[in-house]
Amino acid sequence: MSHVMKSQKKLLTRIRRIKGQASALESALETNTDCIAVLQQVAAIRGAVTGLMAELMEEHMREHLGADNVSPEQRKEDMDQVITVIRSYLK
Amino acid sequence: MSHVMKSQKKLLTRIRRIKGQASALESALETNTDCIAVLQQVAAIRGAVTGLMAELMEEHMREHLGADNVSPEQRKEDMDQVITVIRSYLK
Amino acid sequence: MSHVMKSQKKLLTRIRRIKGQASALESALETNTDCIAVLQQVAAIRGAVTGLMAELMEEHMREHLGADNVSPEQRKEDMDQVITVIRSYLK
Amino acid sequence: MSHVMKSQKKLLTRIRRIKGQASALESALETNTDCIAVLQQVAAIRGAVTGLMAELMEEHMREHLGADNVSPEQRKEDMDQVITVIRSYLK
Repeated sequence: MSHVMKSQKKLLTRIRRIKGQASALESALETNTDCIAVLQQVAAIRGAVTGLMAELMEEHMREHLGADNVSPEQRKEDMDQVITVIRSYLK
Repeated sequence: MSHVMKSQKKLLTRIRRIKGQASALESALETNTDCIAVLQQVAAIRGAVTGLMAELMEEHMREHLGADNVSPEQRKEDMDQVITVIRSYLK
Repeated sequence: MSHVMKSQKKLLTRIRRIKGQASALESALETNTDCIAVLQQVAAIRGAVTGLMAELMEEHMREHLGADNVSPEQRKEDMDQVITVIRSYLK
Repeated sequence: MSHVMKSQKKLLTRIRRIKGQASALESALETNTDCIAVLQQVAAIRGAVTGLMAELMEEHMREHLGADNVSPEQRKEDMDQVITVIRSYLK
């Protein structure tokens, strides 16, 4: 079972919370809410998405790069993929 | 009319796109999609949210700090609020 | 006197501290220091630079966008410049 | 030889460039240079430091997590350290 499946419940809770925040921001924009509150809401959504990113990255690395019984070729392929994603995150 | 109302349509389009991306990520997590694709999806959501942040910040600054006919007290209050939000964005 | 001159001492202290951190990282790289320590040092430098960015941005905004007695043209020009810098920071 | 030693020359070139940028910013602050130029200089330094971070992270991961002949205990220890650093970078 993949790491995504193992922690599916936890990850789905996070993404549904982000969807909820996005819906709340949508309503705020529809109803001309105080604009500083809107600026703070969007910052909160970014914080939640960054948290989900870190969670997914940790799990992915532990499963794919933490395994002992993989071939050198598989380890190299997994490493190349993770490095590409991390570099995009660090931009 | 506030800046949010003036550009409401554009802002709603952005937040609805973010909601769509979040729903797509939710489905990906439910269906055990390839985990590198999931990592890239969450990075795309963060990029979209950061873009919305920059858009909202620009409009807010142009309306509130760009006005010529506000009292010094109002300008100080608006400045304090914007500085607080920008500092939270730059963390 | 510009805002940079008014807070010159404070700003110079910050940039000299960053130079000191960079020199310490240079020595660490020359002497094959523990690589996790090196990774943490470079994160600390980025934190210090981000702090200096926020400090400079606040002062710049307060002086240029916080002034009451500027022409609409000057205010527009200052606003355009600040927005451009903020957008580059938020990338 | 550690990965830091293997790419020492490249890494030292990067950190010395960052030191040079910091010295240039120090001079700019001493000589009351145009403040928008100062804001852009500090953004350039942050970009250079982030680039060095990504470079160091990639090399560290390839050497420590990319090795095939390490004990499960060593791999777990290396993984824990890398995850801690990445989480601090993603904040």
